[in-house]
Amino acid sequence: MKQYYDTVSLDEEACALVAVDQTRLPGETVFLTLTQPQEIFEAIRRLCIRGAPAIGVAAAIGLYVCACRLPDTEPAAFVQHVGQMKAYFASSRPTAVNLTWALERMQQAMRVAGGDMACMRNALHREACAIRDEDIAVCRAIGLHGAALLCDGDGVLTHCNAGRLAAVRYGTALAPVYIAAEQGVRLHVYADETRPLLQGARLTAYELLQAGVPTTLLCDNMAASMMASGRIQAVFVGCDRVAANGDTANKIGTAGVAVLANYYHIPFYVCAPMSTIDPACRDGSAICIEQREGREVTDMWYRSPVAPAGVTVYNPAFDVTDHTLITAMVTEHGVLRPPFHNSIAQVLTRRG
Amino acid sequence: MKQYYDTVSLDEEACALVAVDQTRLPGETVFLTLTQPQEIFEAIRRLCIRGAPAIGVAAAIGLYVCACRLPDTEPAAFVQHVGQMKAYFASSRPTAVNLTWALERMQQAMRVAGGDMACMRNALHREACAIRDEDIAVCRAIGLHGAALLCDGDGVLTHCNAGRLAAVRYGTALAPVYIAAEQGVRLHVYADETRPLLQGARLTAYELLQAGVPTTLLCDNMAASMMASGRIQAVFVGCDRVAANGDTANKIGTAGVAVLANYYHIPFYVCAPMSTIDPACRDGSAICIEQREGREVTDMWYRSPVAPAGVTVYNPAFDVTDHTLITAMVTEHGVLRPPFHNSIAQVLTRRG
Repeated sequence: MKQYYDTVSLDEEACALVAVDQTRLPGETVFLTLTQPQEIFEAIRRLCIRGAPAIGVAAAIGLYVCACRLPDTEPAAFVQHVGQMKAYFASSRPTAVNLTWALERMQQAMRVAGGDMACMRNALHREACAIRDEDIAVCRAIGLHGAALLCDGDGVLTHCNAGRLAAVRYGTALAPVYIAAEQGVRLHVYADETRPLLQGARLTAYELLQAGVPTTLLCDNMAASMMASGRIQAVFVGCDRVAANGDTANKIGTAGVAVLANYYHIPFYVCAPMSTIDPACRDGSAICIEQREGREVTDMWYRSPVAPAGVTVYNPAFDVTDHTLITAMVTEHGVLRPPFHNSIAQVLTRRG
Repeated sequence: MKQYYDTVSLDEEACALVAVDQTRLPGETVFLTLTQPQEIFEAIRRLCIRGAPAIGVAAAIGLYVCACRLPDTEPAAFVQHVGQMKAYFASSRPTAVNLTWALERMQQAMRVAGGDMACMRNALHREACAIRDEDIAVCRAIGLHGAALLCDGDGVLTHCNAGRLAAVRYGTALAPVYIAAEQGVRLHVYADETRPLLQGARLTAYELLQAGVPTTLLCDNMAASMMASGRIQAVFVGCDRVAANGDTANKIGTAGVAVLANYYHIPFYVCAPMSTIDPACRDGSAICIEQREGREVTDMWYRSPVAPAGVTVYNPAFDVTDHTLITAMVTEHGVLRPPFHNSIAQVLTRRG
């Protein structure tokens, strides 16, 4: 496997947040070196940095590098300034849960450390690195558990982008592919383009090619034909939220892929960090699905609109895959098998 | 239902072929009035006129209107000139079977008629009108048989464009929708956008809106979510070729829709003029699937390429729907039910 870069990282020497500009992909690979609050805010707001885990890590590193540049002052004033920056960063993507969660952790670490500015800066540094390292460790663990499900020569279908570009280094759905590649297992990935926002074409195909993983891009409606051809041995997808019974919300189109995999007798794996499992949500019917504007389907990428003016458009951002269609959930704590209401409850209890 | 126009028609007064320019859809509805061989050739070659039945009818009408403009001459010279135009038109889309078939019929009718130029022109006129009227009649019969399968308030999902824009007036897959609308049955059509060439967005959504049929556009990968929501009571698709056992080749993505319909217990109907049934083809494995260039997926419609340079692309034009997934075939001779190798053989025998 080729060398590759982390999606977001801390340049210790320059005390800067470094991130690949995802708005320039797949055409150009441009790295942003960010040290100013407004630069970081804009990079998140403009989706130069996207993907829930990547946003959280970027905000944490960003808060640290900006805190390092605050002028020398009293500890109380420092705490106040950092608090203001935290609120500012949090407002860049108001609905991103990981963003708030990471920034809360940073503020809490600074408060617990206390002492002078140097002490608090050290605490911010430690916490930012911890948040980053935990993301890498969780994804790597998912990758190790998932790679064990794959054999040399397998074809793997994936939908949307739950790869390294959505996190720091491994991603979730693609972590098994990257770990398998590290282990010398040869895989071929089939990437659904993932309409309407084309994350599969723009991001998944890009990051896999960069990493030297053989990749074929296909339109979403070609998955059945590809499965029928015998070239797919496993499906790996990410998830946005998993209910207590295993019903899984993920990018629109995932449920259809699961139905196809079931029909063609191909195992369907959901890669789920424990943080996405919501035991308070009984089943998929309790998951609210965001409806997005029709322009994403009719106009967004095109030279001119491809549908007649005024047509009604159905554009849900997610769908719910029924738990009966899921072969297993791959978490950082191992592979969970059906019945999921049991296996999920057990792993949550073990973690305490 | 609103008044609408035929996709291709003969303007008797002007002795001209009139066709809607499909390259301008869905943005603009522009009619071409064509009387010169080169205009007609270019209109077919440039896909201003597309859809196998529409091309056949256009060529037939085109041959007649051009023959009317030939200077007065000996019958033998007239036959020779018409033969040259026929070969010229046939070369506009060399692989279009309907084109050659319609032009052969025209030449044959002219030869059988014989006599002077006026006689032969009359024969060409009769045959062009017959070819047009047969298309309308076959599609209308399919529509009547198909409409009987629908109830007031039903939601109908369709894939690609097998509507009036592919034929003269009713199309195949959409004929039941248009006939139902004529009968006052209220339907709502859900049109898959149909990547990569977007015939569903550009053509199906356009023609249904023009006809006043309530229509919702969705990305192909949203069909599962839509079916799960309970809004789809039937799927109607067209076909390119039907094997003796009922296996059906149609636009890429059709097989996936059939698998989904099966999973969600929704009837899946193939609208098939008898001319698409190929009893010499035993099953779907004998159908050769055209692979098209990757650029259609990555670049064609977009402001800039949406996938990384050099990525491998899977882009088959068709897939094969297994006969076990098909609820019924709707032909101009009635609705064929499984086992299809029996019902197809019976209807072919009856037609004798």
